[in-house]
Amino acid sequence: MAKLKLTYFDFHGGRGEPARLALSIGGIPFEDVRVKGTDWERLKPDTPYGALPLLEKDGEILAQSNAINRYVGRLANLYPSDPWQAALCDETMEAVEDLGTKIAATMFLGDEQKKEQRKALVEGPIPFYLGRLQQRLEAHGGRYFAGDSLSVADLKVFVLIRHLKSGMLDHVPTDLPERIAPKLAEHYERIKNEPGVRAYYAKHNVGG
Amino acid sequence: MAKLKLTYFDFHGGRGEPARLALSIGGIPFEDVRVKGTDWERLKPDTPYGALPLLEKDGEILAQSNAINRYVGRLANLYPSDPWQAALCDETMEAVEDLGTKIAATMFLGDEQKKEQRKALVEGPIPFYLGRLQQRLEAHGGRYFAGDSLSVADLKVFVLIRHLKSGMLDHVPTDLPERIAPKLAEHYERIKNEPGVRAYYAKHNVGG
Repeated sequence: MAKLKLTYFDFHGGRGEPARLALSIGGIPFEDVRVKGTDWERLKPDTPYGALPLLEKDGEILAQSNAINRYVGRLANLYPSDPWQAALCDETMEAVEDLGTKIAATMFLGDEQKKEQRKALVEGPIPFYLGRLQQRLEAHGGRYFAGDSLSVADLKVFVLIRHLKSGMLDHVPTDLPERIAPKLAEHYERIKNEPGVRAYYAKHNVGG
Repeated sequence: MAKLKLTYFDFHGGRGEPARLALSIGGIPFEDVRVKGTDWERLKPDTPYGALPLLEKDGEILAQSNAINRYVGRLANLYPSDPWQAALCDETMEAVEDLGTKIAATMFLGDEQKKEQRKALVEGPIPFYLGRLQQRLEAHGGRYFAGDSLSVADLKVFVLIRHLKSGMLDHVPTDLPERIAPKLAEHYERIKNEPGVRAYYAKHNVGG
């Protein structure tokens, strides 16, 4: 079996968390490297696009989070085998990435600018994407985003909603998912209670 | 055979062009809907994420450009069947999308702000991504981005370089690809001369 190493920052969330979850749920052995913020500037120049996560397979490198999610999703049986359902899974991951990029752009701003830009997110892109993700979920049966079973798309949405609810994002009300997209909030609770997801957070002593 | 309809804006470039190219190269029949700018505001609310391109298959809708590229890439035999090579194809498409998003954000700015932000792109993200894409191309053999044959990743990079060279982007020197990433500029010429790519642009009376 190929030797896998997943490298991401040392927190539970963000672009690397869906792949960690998928590998764990699938019982795929992997080296779980968690980079401290203080080490990042030293490591960054050697990454393909100056970003994490990275997946290494027998020493070969793969970058870009959704490319990694898709690859490990296949390994973990968390990616649809039907091409159209696979495409719907991809669609969802890319939509979450679009919103995630907008949120990430506000992370390292000064207080005033952060407040202003977060307010703009709360009045625009966040409710827009939550509403549209909910519509797409309902269009596909309401339970899972693709293929009528758990996939990396569900994990990616779960990690987004977990972040929005966490209170870690100043100026973003934690009840936005419940208010704007109650079906997404229910989806979040369902995914949180998947046995593999519960086992992952229990192992890491983290609330789901 | 499924009935396919691809909807995108009425110009040769951007997020919809790789899928048009892939379907054309693969000889896959599709309805090629080109939306005029003046019709967009009316159509926008009915799209899943307020954006184009969209692919319809027998009336079902798929959004997000790279999800579409991957789906039509499979149909057109322009997507690697090996999972690792498929992941490398995905990596490239997502990296191009990251840069494309930064460029797109400068499209509808006022003159002064556009000049300032384009200058920042020319001094930062554009040469960075060109250099890194070139590195990844060379790491995979130098000819194609994945799987040792033409894929949707090559088409996506081709459309990016075509845009940068076009002169349509004010304040972006058209010789950036040649200066920063000569191997990418060579890749562009090779892809432009692929028979299917030449046939597509000849059919539409557009220079490659």
